Amino acid sequence: MKKAGVIGGLGPASTADYYMGIVRGYRRRTRGAGYPELIIYSVDMDALVSDIDDDRWDAVAVKIAYAAEKLASAGADFAAIASNTPHLAFGKICARSPLPLVGIVRETCEHVRRAGYRRVLTIGTLATMRNGLYKKPLEELGAAPLTPSDSEQEEIYSLFFPNLENGVVIPGDRLKMLGLVNKIIAEQNADSVILGCTELPLMIKDGDLGAPVVNAAQIHIDSIVDRMFI
Amino acid sequence: MKKAGVIGGLGPASTADYYMGIVRGYRRRTRGAGYPELIIYSVDMDALVSDIDDDRWDAVAVKIAYAAEKLASAGADFAAIASNTPHLAFGKICARSPLPLVGIVRETCEHVRRAGYRRVLTIGTLATMRNGLYKKPLEELGAAPLTPSDSEQEEIYSLFFPNLENGVVIPGDRLKMLGLVNKIIAEQNADSVILGCTELPLMIKDGDLGAPVVNAAQIHIDSIVDRMFI
Repeated sequence: MKKAGVIGGLGPASTADYYMGIVRGYRRRTRGAGYPELIIYSVDMDALVSDIDDDRWDAVAVKIAYAAEKLASAGADFAAIASNTPHLAFGKICARSPLPLVGIVRETCEHVRRAGYRRVLTIGTLATMRNGLYKKPLEELGAAPLTPSDSEQEEIYSLFFPNLENGVVIPGDRLKMLGLVNKIIAEQNADSVILGCTELPLMIKDGDLGAPVVNAAQIHIDSIVDRMFI
Repeated sequence: MKKAGVIGGLGPASTADYYMGIVRGYRRRTRGAGYPELIIYSVDMDALVSDIDDDRWDAVAVKIAYAAEKLASAGADFAAIASNTPHLAFGKICARSPLPLVGIVRETCEHVRRAGYRRVLTIGTLATMRNGLYKKPLEELGAAPLTPSDSEQEEIYSLFFPNLENGVVIPGDRLKMLGLVNKIIAEQNADSVILGCTELPLMIKDGDLGAPVVNAAQIHIDSIVDRMFI
């Protein structure tokens, strides 16, 4: 049995979802026998967001790797970052981390490959959309990575703060989000939508949109649970 | 700024509540500036419950102190156990823990003292009620500690598993719980009710009962946040 470490706080609401999701996934595997030992190191999101906004990716890597070191000290065998955006610095983070990391992008793209999706829209934070977090890995699968236009990106991201980031879904915001994403699906003829921000599953469920939803957070959680049993 | 460590998993749903509660409390204090660094070590509840059921309090202390050691290794300055029941071994745990611990019983009784409650009913797990977790500290305040009868204790505890412990409130279970606790309040002339199990606030809110509710989990969370700023 391998002990998981979660680098959390990005934001806290999705970290709480990861925690409960990992516990549930573990208990599904054990048919309800016992609970996993699990360690969470929750960082200051504001410090990370300001590094990300200014493209200070080395600083992002240093902060995340510091949390990974602390998780290693507490006995974690591997770690995962409960967030999409910091994965923009995933290579730099892996180079500094004392623990192996389960990356959300690779696991999500493996899911896209198995599902056979060809025209894949990614929605997420501004940094995730602008920097094309899923772009190259999707191209490597032979899938077309689709991105909202600049103004659509701004509109999507404006619906994140402050409520969704704090785990609160305002019904009016949700309707705006669904309408907007459905418009982009139709415009770009997407056959699937990656929820490329770990708070988005709070607002968007599979069946809500005109195309199947790829819930990156849930796929990541499942991969973390799998890894505990390796 | 002191870094908090939370010994969690007892059960997971209340640990998630502690986590979100500490983040919210911190941000109230900082008026929304930044997020706390926070470490959670989540243990296997089933192993603890079996020790508690068999009154193996040294084993409980060893397991909890082990989690405290791991939190210390990860950089925590102090720790708190996100659960009432293990506090039955609080003295033994403190003797073994490398970190100072913020105890839920002391903080809750301080709240009772300030509120001036005199006839205080405690509901919680069987172990908490049978062993009178809050009995002596309440007596030391000059308050009368009230306890449900043996059959009422069984009835209360039967409403914990499996749903409440997993964070799910079944409306019918909730109504049974409120009816039962109100009956005990009337029988014993209680002027207040300690929610002496960290899952109970999911089911019982202040105003739901015929006497004010003392939410031990929330009082504990507030104390943890206070301690971060000392």
